[in-house]
Amino acid sequence: MNKQADWRDRLDSALKGNRRDAYSRYLQLATVGLDGAPRCRTLVFRGFLEESNTLLAITDGRSQKVEEIARDNRAQVHWYFARSREQFRMETRVTMADLGRQGNLIADVWSRLSEAARDQFFWHPPGEPLESGETLSPTESPPNTFRLMLMEPQKVDYLWLGKRHQRVISVSSGDMWEETQVNP
Amino acid sequence: MNKQADWRDRLDSALKGNRRDAYSRYLQLATVGLDGAPRCRTLVFRGFLEESNTLLAITDGRSQKVEEIARDNRAQVHWYFARSREQFRMETRVTMADLGRQGNLIADVWSRLSEAARDQFFWHPPGEPLESGETLSPTESPPNTFRLMLMEPQKVDYLWLGKRHQRVISVSSGDMWEETQVNP
Repeated sequence: MNKQADWRDRLDSALKGNRRDAYSRYLQLATVGLDGAPRCRTLVFRGFLEESNTLLAITDGRSQKVEEIARDNRAQVHWYFARSREQFRMETRVTMADLGRQGNLIADVWSRLSEAARDQFFWHPPGEPLESGETLSPTESPPNTFRLMLMEPQKVDYLWLGKRHQRVISVSSGDMWEETQVNP
Repeated sequence: MNKQADWRDRLDSALKGNRRDAYSRYLQLATVGLDGAPRCRTLVFRGFLEESNTLLAITDGRSQKVEEIARDNRAQVHWYFARSREQFRMETRVTMADLGRQGNLIADVWSRLSEAARDQFFWHPPGEPLESGETLSPTESPPNTFRLMLMEPQKVDYLWLGKRHQRVISVSSGDMWEETQVNP
């Protein structure tokens, strides 16, 4: 692997510096809705794909965002670290992990989920009128509602709201990243 | 004014219950970029327009989001309250306050800003390569880079990640709001 990108160093250090706050692992994913209007929701960061800058998150295959990403897989990851006052805005391309090629990775992420997190995948379809009937019984292996999302950054806009604001834009070109300091 | 919308009661109570966290007044605004891809950034909530559910925020007239909103003023306000584990996702229409009709409101919001917040409007153009030269001197009255954004909710998707998750969707129809409980 090449030298790690500078933005990734900053992100690793933000994750470390803010780790006392459980919510520092919550990021926002913005997509374009089927009506062409923007959508945004909070997701839990589930780590990086090994030896890469690709971020992992999970979602329910029945959720609206899966349909949105199928139509246009450009998504912005937004991450604000309250304690260190740092904002990361990443233009990403999102793909869903493939059960054939990435079954082990899917199973690994599934196995590390809490029971409560797993249970959600056996509930009634999200977003539909509230149903109170029995839900399915949880299984040991990932159910077919489970999706692992791979979010690959193409461009990162970093803002540090320190005493003197700083802003750096990093753009991917092949395996390299080009950085430009810009006015905050 | 009609009876306050139930989602607004929930939002007021989230603001109250999370007020110890300064960052509980930070929300995210998602827009569609000029390239058709989604964009998202953190903004500071500056209160409600009097006797309405319209949210206020400020921005720099030279920022990218102003151009994006001029082209498509549909924006999603995302707000996550870490302490109470509540997420509000609002489909809004954004307008910029008009200096002719709303000059007093603009001046009022400006007058309540901290010195540091005001200074930003006199900096070099945001997003352009870093310039180190002298910036303009701050003025008492709002400079012409200052914009007050009015974000009017049309639909609110509320999610409470309590012991038992709850989700309610509220849709505006005229002066009324219709609520539906949906599967989380």
